[in-house]
Amino acid sequence: VTEDDVVAAIRAIVEPPHASVKLGIGDDAALWQPSRSHRSAITTDMLVEGVHFTRQDMILEDAGWRAMVANLSDLAAMGARPVLATVALGVPGAAAAGEILEIYRGLAAAAKHSEIDIVGGDLSRSGVLTISITAIGEVRASNVKTRSGGRPNDVLAVTGALGAARAGLELASDPNAIASDLAETALRAFRRPQARVAEARFLAASANVHAMMDCSDGLSTDLDRLCQASRCGALLESVPVAPAARALAECRGEDPQSFAIAGGEDFELLIAVDRRAFSYLAGRFERRFRRPLARVGDLRERPGIEWNGAPLPRSGWDHFA
Amino acid sequence: VTEDDVVAAIRAIVEPPHASVKLGIGDDAALWQPSRSHRSAITTDMLVEGVHFTRQDMILEDAGWRAMVANLSDLAAMGARPVLATVALGVPGAAAAGEILEIYRGLAAAAKHSEIDIVGGDLSRSGVLTISITAIGEVRASNVKTRSGGRPNDVLAVTGALGAARAGLELASDPNAIASDLAETALRAFRRPQARVAEARFLAASANVHAMMDCSDGLSTDLDRLCQASRCGALLESVPVAPAARALAECRGEDPQSFAIAGGEDFELLIAVDRRAFSYLAGRFERRFRRPLARVGDLRERPGIEWNGAPLPRSGWDHFA
Repeated sequence: VTEDDVVAAIRAIVEPPHASVKLGIGDDAALWQPSRSHRSAITTDMLVEGVHFTRQDMILEDAGWRAMVANLSDLAAMGARPVLATVALGVPGAAAAGEILEIYRGLAAAAKHSEIDIVGGDLSRSGVLTISITAIGEVRASNVKTRSGGRPNDVLAVTGALGAARAGLELASDPNAIASDLAETALRAFRRPQARVAEARFLAASANVHAMMDCSDGLSTDLDRLCQASRCGALLESVPVAPAARALAECRGEDPQSFAIAGGEDFELLIAVDRRAFSYLAGRFERRFRRPLARVGDLRERPGIEWNGAPLPRSGWDHFA
Repeated sequence: VTEDDVVAAIRAIVEPPHASVKLGIGDDAALWQPSRSHRSAITTDMLVEGVHFTRQDMILEDAGWRAMVANLSDLAAMGARPVLATVALGVPGAAAAGEILEIYRGLAAAAKHSEIDIVGGDLSRSGVLTISITAIGEVRASNVKTRSGGRPNDVLAVTGALGAARAGLELASDPNAIASDLAETALRAFRRPQARVAEARFLAASANVHAMMDCSDGLSTDLDRLCQASRCGALLESVPVAPAARALAECRGEDPQSFAIAGGEDFELLIAVDRRAFSYLAGRFERRFRRPLARVGDLRERPGIEWNGAPLPRSGWDHFA
């Protein structure tokens, strides 16, 4: 049983939504039409101590930051501008009020950074520290990007180098494995990731971007989701690898690209772009954000993902695999 | 340190919201204005196994039902019509997919009952079974009811008898303490509570209802919150007691009203109504819902809550007391 199997079974239990809901369970966020001229994107994401973070690897303020960024990234992936968020916190009986406020300092810092308002929440005792956030954003109907719009022959691209967060996670317990400046960059990518909100809104405004999602579960898993939603397959050719990820993989004798493809939590965006428009869009993107929009492969009709001449297995997070 | 102290400290950390947020942290729900003519109410509520429910006391389907109803009740307390909800589930590693689907059957049944759409969610491993829901509703700006609108001399009233859920909780481990038909009613009130959505929308349409909230944490705690938000005090005179609560309290030699006042999770609404309008409103309410709108006391200028000639201490749930 995989997480996606469970989600499919849940969809069968839940009633089909009313007409004001334009997109239900299964994408980065749901879409709702509160009034004729508006679309709201809604997403929810839960971080659990011991599963998504440990206090050995990061301080609680960073855990709060990451929890907020995971939700901001899901909104970004729909092309939405973040508007507001609610926060439910479950805290162990031993947690002092100070720990709750430390988490909130991280939540508030990430929220301020993307101009989203924290408008409410819930506090509960729990055996495990749990941060559960729901975030709402606004998006023009014409700018909405889902996972399902990809077409054979589209160019696949990502908004940045992959593998830094995975390298940071592994370096948190072994910080001297690579050069200290690289290690510091990776640790920061892991503890204080950035949601690509501005990049996403830029890409969402282009009709040539057919599909968009974030790479929070690792490219191998997320590309598979995009392919399945778009009913096509992909040839993955080459991915940009973060310098720290490359250094860590090489000192272990692993292939840097495979290391990066399997790493989650990078929060870069994965897009499928009309082939004829890609180089023009990539040029504008690079001038605007001073970072390349990196082509990683193509969509194609044949199902499955090919990588290095072989089928690519999912290797990112799956809470049920 | 109480839960309310922690919430006050959180409010100081979180940035003040933008203009489209009409009500932030601190009421049953937040209020947002997605477009000029619309108000949305947003609430979030987390249920944790071992804190809010145990598998000895209820099946997982009931836990799902209760989690949804807690959110529906918060929307109702703002006068809002439920529109959509997201669900984040944390499940222990040992939990089978079947247990997740059992929770979803309860969530979906409660959602169908109040016509709210479940539009998305998140699944995560967790050391503790956790159900975290965010729900959104719609309300006319003129119908919004907060906790802060109560005025001295307002009549305080509740939409139904109290104490049934507390009796049900206690009877779950000792079902033969009272007559079996009463015990069954109480167990149902505890396991399958009802959110007073229709009643709330009826009351919200009256300008004579100055304040409204739900009694999810027990009347003693929630009335104190209403009084503090409305900057006044209250004289509590007499509360309607559910028959099962009365029977259980009497067989233990406890005062039935005190038992009911201290019991949480009843999800009845507590309102403050203009004194001159109360009997007319109560008559209309009774004809419409075939249930009395029960006067329990009055608001007054003097701070604090008086009950039986003495100050009433908070006795409901407080996760930090």
